[in-house]
Amino acid sequence: MRIAVDVMGGDFAPRETVAGAVQAAREMPDTTLVLVGDRQVVADELARQDTAGLTLELAQAGDVITMAESPAAAVRAKPEASIVVATEMVKRGEVDALATVGHTGAGMVAAVLILGRIPGAKRPTVGVPILGLQPQTFFWDVGANVDCKPMHLLQFGLMGSLYVELVEGIENPTVALLTNGLEDSKGDSLTQAAFSLLAESDVNFVGNVEALNVIHGQVNVAVCDGLVGNVLLKTIESLSNLMLDLVEADVGSRLPAHVARDAFAPALGDLRQRTDYAEIGAVPLLGVQGHVVIGHGRSQAKAVKAAIHQARRAAEADLVSAITQRLAAP
Amino acid sequence: MRIAVDVMGGDFAPRETVAGAVQAAREMPDTTLVLVGDRQVVADELARQDTAGLTLELAQAGDVITMAESPAAAVRAKPEASIVVATEMVKRGEVDALATVGHTGAGMVAAVLILGRIPGAKRPTVGVPILGLQPQTFFWDVGANVDCKPMHLLQFGLMGSLYVELVEGIENPTVALLTNGLEDSKGDSLTQAAFSLLAESDVNFVGNVEALNVIHGQVNVAVCDGLVGNVLLKTIESLSNLMLDLVEADVGSRLPAHVARDAFAPALGDLRQRTDYAEIGAVPLLGVQGHVVIGHGRSQAKAVKAAIHQARRAAEADLVSAITQRLAAP
Repeated sequence: MRIAVDVMGGDFAPRETVAGAVQAAREMPDTTLVLVGDRQVVADELARQDTAGLTLELAQAGDVITMAESPAAAVRAKPEASIVVATEMVKRGEVDALATVGHTGAGMVAAVLILGRIPGAKRPTVGVPILGLQPQTFFWDVGANVDCKPMHLLQFGLMGSLYVELVEGIENPTVALLTNGLEDSKGDSLTQAAFSLLAESDVNFVGNVEALNVIHGQVNVAVCDGLVGNVLLKTIESLSNLMLDLVEADVGSRLPAHVARDAFAPALGDLRQRTDYAEIGAVPLLGVQGHVVIGHGRSQAKAVKAAIHQARRAAEADLVSAITQRLAAP
Repeated sequence: MRIAVDVMGGDFAPRETVAGAVQAAREMPDTTLVLVGDRQVVADELARQDTAGLTLELAQAGDVITMAESPAAAVRAKPEASIVVATEMVKRGEVDALATVGHTGAGMVAAVLILGRIPGAKRPTVGVPILGLQPQTFFWDVGANVDCKPMHLLQFGLMGSLYVELVEGIENPTVALLTNGLEDSKGDSLTQAAFSLLAESDVNFVGNVEALNVIHGQVNVAVCDGLVGNVLLKTIESLSNLMLDLVEADVGSRLPAHVARDAFAPALGDLRQRTDYAEIGAVPLLGVQGHVVIGHGRSQAKAVKAAIHQARRAAEADLVSAITQRLAAP
């Protein structure tokens, strides 16, 4: 198994991305990691790390796409960008998978342009798990796809269900539509039409759920339009932080100072880390002809390592072949 | 000023609704509260309270609409239901406003059927503030209106802006569209069309916001389709509780037992109450020809009192006339 790591992408690249790759390499001795980036920069970062006995390769990529750039234009204009070079390696079969924590849009555009969509896949989609909690709902789409058609939601359900089953190991996963109520009659014209498609499909469709149910992980897969999913994701991300800020200020101030410092603050810090999306493993991009995992831009070493593990698990499960077969089925 | 209180509606009626009405009556000696419900039941509850010197009237309503009932059918089938009787009193001008914490759908249907929509108002809408925090974003719609048209979002913005200005006292309130990103190009076809309408209107439109911005109260009014708003509201409601549950379990267990019991638990309880939607004042139903405030079904006395205050403030500001004039303007 060989995995490319875009070590130039992300808010904390190359320091944290290289550190995460080194940690991952230590945990997967049977896998070769290919660090894609400026050779000198990467070598300098590697020199800070203990790499004894690790199988690491370098692949030169002299450019990088920054968060401020328009993804479609940047991918076309920068053939030497690390995400472009890494995706080309997937295309040529030189690696089995790719992990990046760079610009999400650029990662998606590179995957679609270079790898292409799986035949029949209408829209590639990015999903996430709800917080880092167990039990856990994974949901698609988180923002790339707005103005979805019913068929898109069906495909998010089909592909998400395969991901959760093959990569997360959840047998016969439940799939639900995220709407404004539980009853079959709830939802808008989009979700009502998607309801019929999902009910007729072979996924384990359990009907409509509302936000409460996905927050509590009561289904394995939830699907929704990308605008709804984006509001859900960003609400979770910002509100979980805000609530912990409120606890820190309101509750912390009412504890004895030494307890606040020695016990309360560290415990709260652990919880903050546990529920931080930058610490939560990413989920592969679904619907493209390659195993590509795009993690959070704020990822530090631990999350980069998690993204590499995710890329490896997706490739091991051969998720792309499973989705290809499923979408080719009548 | 005379305000009708539907004391039979809500999960904790009539105990908490009557208690809340009594508390409100004490705080507004210039206002007559009319308690609408079964005369004997209400009299029995009042007997538990200290009502010396308070101006309270009773109005007989022998029936009630429960949460399990279909609102449209129940409003038509139960002319003696407290929400129907109370809404009829608004219609006849016997009271200036109405507060209820009963079935939201029944309150809306009664208002639309009995009071009618304000001329030009396409869809009456229910909004809420984000948590009980300051600064605070109010958002519309929270679930009654799905499959919105651009004109509906424009009207939510117009009416919400008037509410926030006249009742909450925020001068020249900012109005934003809740979408999947800040850039003007973000959003779906609905929000992009609404963007143009809002930009051409006379509200203080500041463009697109994402969930992070409304969670942090960075605009006064946010508008969105009811499915999106419902996901936002229910995510906030369930996640704020879940985060506090996690803090209680994860952090509480790492504190000395006596600190956890005597300082941590009470402080956390206060924060829980402060961020509980059942404790947060309701916002008037916008777009109907009368001042109707529909609070959370789980409201206890304090929240019932808050809903009555809200009804009074809406009537004092004559919000209905302001919206009527605004929608009649070219």
